[in-house]
This record gives sequence, C-alpha cells and structure tokens, in this order.
Amino acid sequence: MDNLDLIKEISTPSPTKIVLLVVDGLGGLPSPKTGKTELETASTPNLDQLANKGICGLIDPVSPGITPGSTPAHLALFGYDPLKFNIGRGVVEAVGIDFDLKPADIAARGNFCTVDKAGLVTDRRAGRISTEKCTELCRLLDGLTIEGVKLLVCPVREHRFIAVFRGEGLAPEVSDSDPQQVGVAPRAVKAQNAKADKMANVANEFIAQAKKVLAKHHPANMLLLRGFSRRPNLPAMGEIYKLKPAAIAQYPMYRGLARLVGMQILETGTSIKQEFITLKQNYNSYDFFFVHIKETDSAGEDGDFERKVKVIEEVDKALPTLTSLKPDVIVVTGDHSTPALLKGHSWHPLPVILYSRWCRPDRVGEFSESACIFGGLGRFLATQVMPLAMANALKLAKFGA
Amino acid sequence: MDNLDLIKEISTPSPTKIVLLVVDGLGGLPSPKTGKTELETASTPNLDQLANKGICGLIDPVSPGITPGSTPAHLALFGYDPLKFNIGRGVVEAVGIDFDLKPADIAARGNFCTVDKAGLVTDRRAGRISTEKCTELCRLLDGLTIEGVKLLVCPVREHRFIAVFRGEGLAPEVSDSDPQQVGVAPRAVKAQNAKADKMANVANEFIAQAKKVLAKHHPANMLLLRGFSRRPNLPAMGEIYKLKPAAIAQYPMYRGLARLVGMQILETGTSIKQEFITLKQNYNSYDFFFVHIKETDSAGEDGDFERKVKVIEEVDKALPTLTSLKPDVIVVTGDHSTPALLKGHSWHPLPVILYSRWCRPDRVGEFSESACIFGGLGRFLATQVMPLAMANALKLAKFGA
Repeated sequence: MDNLDLIKEISTPSPTKIVLLVVDGLGGLPSPKTGKTELETASTPNLDQLANKGICGLIDPVSPGITPGSTPAHLALFGYDPLKFNIGRGVVEAVGIDFDLKPADIAARGNFCTVDKAGLVTDRRAGRISTEKCTELCRLLDGLTIEGVKLLVCPVREHRFIAVFRGEGLAPEVSDSDPQQVGVAPRAVKAQNAKADKMANVANEFIAQAKKVLAKHHPANMLLLRGFSRRPNLPAMGEIYKLKPAAIAQYPMYRGLARLVGMQILETGTSIKQEFITLKQNYNSYDFFFVHIKETDSAGEDGDFERKVKVIEEVDKALPTLTSLKPDVIVVTGDHSTPALLKGHSWHPLPVILYSRWCRPDRVGEFSESACIFGGLGRFLATQVMPLAMANALKLAKFGA
Repeated sequence: MDNLDLIKEISTPSPTKIVLLVVDGLGGLPSPKTGKTELETASTPNLDQLANKGICGLIDPVSPGITPGSTPAHLALFGYDPLKFNIGRGVVEAVGIDFDLKPADIAARGNFCTVDKAGLVTDRRAGRISTEKCTELCRLLDGLTIEGVKLLVCPVREHRFIAVFRGEGLAPEVSDSDPQQVGVAPRAVKAQNAKADKMANVANEFIAQAKKVLAKHHPANMLLLRGFSRRPNLPAMGEIYKLKPAAIAQYPMYRGLARLVGMQILETGTSIKQEFITLKQNYNSYDFFFVHIKETDSAGEDGDFERKVKVIEEVDKALPTLTSLKPDVIVVTGDHSTPALLKGHSWHPLPVILYSRWCRPDRVGEFSESACIFGGLGRFLATQVMPLAMANALKLAKFGA
C-alpha cells in the first residue's frame, strides 16, 4: 500500500476547508550584499503572523538535491509521487497551453525546424520563428485526418507547437522523429510495441504531409515530433481526498496540471489581488482551493531579485482576503525554489507554513528560509503536505485499530 | 525509478569539482566529565569556519537506530542504497585486504579452526593463531587447482583468511561450511540451485584437501568457510554521476570499497597530512575526490577519547591544504559514529558540512554534533549526500518539465 492508497482509505468528507497557496519559485538564495533571501528581504507582516500562529518547516519537492520542473513539483504538492507519475513531454506541453486533452488523445511536442536540400536538419528551431508565424503554420496543419485519426495542431510559442492525435486504435509507445541534433535527417517514428503500429504510421504520414505543406515556408520547412504521450491516469483528488477541489491560476500550465488531477478550474483575472477575490467569490462552493502565484518564479528566472521581493510583498498584502475567510487549514509554500542568483529553478528546499486550529505551533515567528529550519514540521517531502493538510482539517480517520 | 536511476538520468559532466572528506567514526558521545563529544572537545577553527560558511545537518548512514559496518556506511555515502546493494562477507574480507577481485571470482571468508579426533569443532578460531602462522598456513593452500578452478588463499589477520575461487562455471549460491557453533562437525557446502553445483563440489574438495594439509598443524587443524559471494555489480560512480572519481585512503579496506564503485585509487602516504598533499598533487586530474581518514575510528574503537580528539585536531590543521584548492563543493562528514565511550561503531547520526557557493548557508557557526541539529540540511539519509553535492556543483539537470 503506498501513501496515496492509505490516504484514500482513511479520508472522509467533512465541511472543513483547505487553502493551498503556492507561490511559484518561492525559495531563494541570500543576496551577497545583505545575506538575506528574497523572502527574507520582503516585508511580509501577514505571512509572518501566519507563521507565528502556525507550524513551519522546509519541503523537498522530489528529494534533496533534485531540481524539479513545474510538473513534478506540483504533482508532489498535490500528493502524487512525482517519480511514479511521470508525465510525458507532449502532455506537459498540451497542459501548458490549457489544451483540453481527452483521455485517449496522444500528444506530441513539436518543433518547426529547418532542413537543407538533402533533408538534413540544419536548425532544430527554425531560427526561432515568431509565435505569429508558428500560429499561421499550425493553422495549415490543424484538422488533417489520417486513417480516421484527427490531427489537432496548436501553437505554443516561437517554434514550439503541439500535435494531438485523436482517434481509435492509437498507443503512445512510439519513438521520436526529433533526432535531437543537426546534420542528420529527421527519424522515422517507430512503434515500440505492436499496439503502437497505427500510431507510428499516422505520425509518419502526418510528417510526410507536413513536409509538403511546409516546403515553401523556409526556415520553418519541416517539423520534428517528440514525447508522444497520453494523459496519465492520475487518480482524481476528489476520489483520494473526498474533496471538491478548485484551482485558481493565471497561467494555463497550472490550470492544466490542476485539471489533470481533477480540479475544477475557476475563471480569474490577471493580478494577484484578483486571484484572491476569485477565492472569496467561490469560497462556499468548494472545500479545497489551489491558488497559484506565478510572478515570483518569473522574476527569479529573470534574475530580478528586487522584483521577486515586490511580488512576495504583493502576495502578503493580498493575504488578508484569504485569512479573513477563516479556512480550517491554510498552507503557504512554493513548488520549488527559483533563486534570482541562479536565474532558474533550483534544488533548495521550500519554506512552508501550515496553519490550523489543531497544528501544534512551534517557535517560528517569521516566514523565511532560515527561520523555517527551526520549524516544528522539520524537513520533509512535498508529497506529505496534503496528508498533513488533510489531518489538520480533521479529514483523515484513524489508521488501524 | 529509484534515486540512483534518477541521478544517472539527470547528471551532466561539468568542470566543477567535489571533495568528500570522510572522517571515519567521526560522531561521538559526550564525556561524562565535560558534557562534550570528541568533536566538541577538539579545537577545530578551520572546520568551524567551513561550517559557518556552509550548510550543516546530521546524517543517518542506513536509518535511525542502525549501526552500520564500514561497507554499508561507505556505500551509502557514495549514494548506493546499502540495503539494496548488500555485499557478501567473502567480498568484504577480500576488499578489506585490497585483494583485486575479478568480476567472476567467488570469495569466501575463512577461519582456521580446531577439530577433535571425531572431527567436531572445538574452537572456531583455532585459539586465535598469530597472523604469522595464518600466513604460513595460507601459503600451503594457495595455488591449488580443483576441477580447473584456481584457489587463491590469502591471510587477513589472526585466524582469518580469504579463499578466492577463480575459474569457469561457478556460482555463489552455496551454503556455509561454518556451523557457527562448536561440538558439531563442519557442514558440507551445499548448492542452493543447480548452477552452483560445481561451486559446492570444488569447495568441498578444497576443504577435504585442506583437512589433510592442516592435520599436523593443531590447533589450526581445519578450516571453516562462509559468505561465498561475488563482487556485486555496482554501477560505477563515473557512469551514475558522470564524474572522474579518485580515492585517497591509507587503509586497504577503503581503497577496496572505492575500487568496487569504480574510483581510481591514488597512492598516498601514511599520515593525514600526506593524504591532503596527495589531494593537492592530483587535483587537476579528477573531479571527485573521496578522502578517507581512518585514525578517528581506530581511536574510538580503542575507547581512547583523547586520541580521537587529537586526530580530529590533526584533520583540522591539514584542512587548509584542501580548502585552498577551492573545490566547488566540499563535504565533511563521517561514515558512522564511533564514540570512545562505546568502543565501537554506533547508530548515532553524523554531523555534516556541505560548503558551496550555492548552498544557502544556515546559522550553524561550529562543527559539532549539537550545533548540526540546527543545520539547514536537517537530518537526512547518507544516500542523499551525493545528490546534494552534485546539485551544489551544478552537475544535475532539471527533472521533468
């Protein structure tokens, strides 16, 4: 029995409510000037008060030392072992543009690329064509039907797109056409088992037809496909936790991930403040809310320490809208660290606050990486956040007699 | 996917360097007089400075409460799950005398013993004969050939030796001849599956021949074999971590373990200072160094608190030779605790310092068991030391998208 089986067995519906506030890329590294991280630099009276009333700790998204992408990091926060539930590249891209993937669909990540007269790849990204051009090319390919399989081709950004194959008799176990290098021809897509023969044929035929269509669109005169994958069969959060979960996120990627685990997606605006208002407006209709703040991560990725500080302060200002709803359990954390100094995701653990009436408070009085070291939750895996939130919401029955 | 698979998938070569300094048996227990452990008693300005700049914590070699031997303790530090990669007794003994075990060799741990006229064991250790006598007896047995299998018999210490079977068609799944008690006859070696028939025959024939040879050497007039085993198929560190690893160790046991995981063994001297000089001399040729200090453990095993303190101080004095090389990542820890008060290995967790430019320092300002409780790394498993070192050396790519 794994942890998810256990939780499913002992979870019980109840009127209590949980809010999981995920501040993307929250964790940081200290500025060499001040010795303080972004979170430690920000003025956060409301978060500090919550840390003071609650119990704190540090979480590892996957395990110590592992820098996660957004997908495994969020799966872990939702309680799913990210090493067990590995999501294919095609699905990740589809999710990232809020594409409503059906259970039988097979999605592949696509690159428009450049080939020379001999058919050899000279640029795997077609000179990073504009998103506008990408959109125009996708329109030329979208809607084709091959062997009864419908092609849905949607732009992502620049040279990137997704190809979704919708039809019967398909299986995702096929190799990539993308050779991941230049100077060679795109590879034929090959079935890795007998069930995937049709998928390979349809993919190769699609590539052949696309080649003709794209011939006159140099530098984007060919395409490469990789990461053929089907939406993973993730048990729904509603079933595991006996919750009615809803997601509030400005960015499609996170709405898509929330959809994969069965959350209801709530319409929201384009500011942090508006996300909290959306929470307030929908508060009576659900008992679990995933609220996602993206801008901290973007600022970290840009290496903009000061902007990340400001975004954290903005979250802090909006927090009373959340706390005034008096959820039974509030969890504030991030999905992974994105230190401005590293300009990217990192392996550093994330500070976490868990507040509930039943949380056994510790002595941590401020929300920061260095203070959370001393928190009562210690250092633990992100997959354990949901069991702890559930327990504190009195939604878990006793295990064993 | 286990953790090692994950690391292998995401590790990338890079010019950064890691030094893992293992102070054997480092952890201790407080002296009843002073309330301070060996490490806390020692004057260690250089280690304290490193702890201050780095991030600290406590590691459990196997899991809380488990006292490990040197083999599982080191495997864990190198990132191998010591419960998964169990190394047979025969191999451990062979490794312990720096014997260059070939992949197909089968090694057994041997005892010279005493049997009475009825052939019953009266002393499993033959009165602990001298190492000199053991060496003489091994010479009588070494080099025999049975069914095309060559016997390599080497002394270890006192009554202990190893018998290595080198030849074709052997398998290690055979029972021990050692009955582990007196008053009974040595057991026949039995094959535990059909593949091991030849191994059992050869072992029994070797024992029969040895009995004749040893007859006139009372009290060492017989031998007992146990722990038939083959060198485990450990994935090489170079492959897992994409590193070029080297080991600096005065004692053969540790060179042997390092060899098992594919490290290059560097010639060194017989003092701590010389080990650090060896590091300096070879610094440009490798990107991972395992430096092993043995004397702390020996002092602990002898129950010599003061000597253990002095050895730690000697390590501290030599440390600037290491730090002045400016490795990207420095890890200082032990393989297990050996408190002088217990005169042996113990289960107590080990203090650890991890220093790198990217390590997110904590508030620990000295290297000691009691200070490391408050370290930012928390308390974690020794198998996670390598992933953390790799991450801090920026040698791990992001996991998932």
